[in-house]
Amino acid sequence: MGRWEPNARERLAKAALELYRERGYEQTTVAEIAKRAGLTERTFFRHYADKREVLFDGSGALQELAVSGVVGAPESAAPLDAMAAGLEAASGWFADRREHARQRQAVIVANAELRERELIKLASLSAALADALRGRGVAEPTASLAAEAGMAVFKVGFQRWIAEAEEATLSQLMRESMAELKAVTAHGQARPGR
Amino acid sequence: MGRWEPNARERLAKAALELYRERGYEQTTVAEIAKRAGLTERTFFRHYADKREVLFDGSGALQELAVSGVVGAPESAAPLDAMAAGLEAASGWFADRREHARQRQAVIVANAELRERELIKLASLSAALADALRGRGVAEPTASLAAEAGMAVFKVGFQRWIAEAEEATLSQLMRESMAELKAVTAHGQARPGR
Repeated sequence: MGRWEPNARERLAKAALELYRERGYEQTTVAEIAKRAGLTERTFFRHYADKREVLFDGSGALQELAVSGVVGAPESAAPLDAMAAGLEAASGWFADRREHARQRQAVIVANAELRERELIKLASLSAALADALRGRGVAEPTASLAAEAGMAVFKVGFQRWIAEAEEATLSQLMRESMAELKAVTAHGQARPGR
Repeated sequence: MGRWEPNARERLAKAALELYRERGYEQTTVAEIAKRAGLTERTFFRHYADKREVLFDGSGALQELAVSGVVGAPESAAPLDAMAAGLEAASGWFADRREHARQRQAVIVANAELRERELIKLASLSAALADALRGRGVAEPTASLAAEAGMAVFKVGFQRWIAEAEEATLSQLMRESMAELKAVTAHGQARPGR
């Protein structure tokens, strides 16, 4: 083991994102990332399995937070309100990472392999949330529908949050998107959003 | 060009699905598919680019049908009702293919690469439907939320339709799932589905 490097993990992530933006994800090597961060390749591999992992490092923690939000919602909460609690818990994880999230999204959108990976992570999150709802006693197909509806709110709220010049918090935008979803699905409502 | 082979396309698709089920997708070669169908490899490649394409052959036609359903909905239809019209149009495409859909799903679930491909096709369908809604004058984020909500109904309805022993039609199950989504998202409703 080499010597301890302060904030090595964060420095590597920052360097990787900079290089992916400057040169493209495919053109960037682990050696270049380590050099930019002022660290060694060996240090890189102590923190990340490969250069893709740098971009998806947080997805496990995010899923745990969202699931714990659903599990911890009041027992009386309806399925979609439990989902809203999960989204609120997830929002906290992103709070001070808006610029990072913008940069990361630009890298992912530009690469087919990364887009696939992102879709798989989102599908996995949806499945975990449906599972958490079933754990609350919610029957199928309600659990899957509520989970998917919550994921729709998450995706749309997140896209708005990383849009240029958007200043509202992710938590606010999730709540707005949830209200909008309820308006869209309200039976007999006259053409919402038109 | 070889001689004309009656129903070559369908015979190849049927043979491929049989072999993917029997031996696994990865273990099956194009030569084996052609042999099982009583055709040549050359004929296979006149119909399909590769062995994966056999499984995703219909996704373009499905997307066109769903989009045309949204575009053709009455001008007065609310966004989610236009989505329902799209799902109804898409249901028709599947009508006499339940057993095929079951077999296909079993193959896709068993292979990571195919699951990724399926997720991309679904994301592409969702984007095309949001685009069709915007073409009807539906503003963002309503268009994206309605499209994603409709996709949730599609996924859940489809899963129910291919479940063993399920006898209701896809169209019926889509309508039930849509009603269930509306119940899940109805503001103030007491814990639907519990």
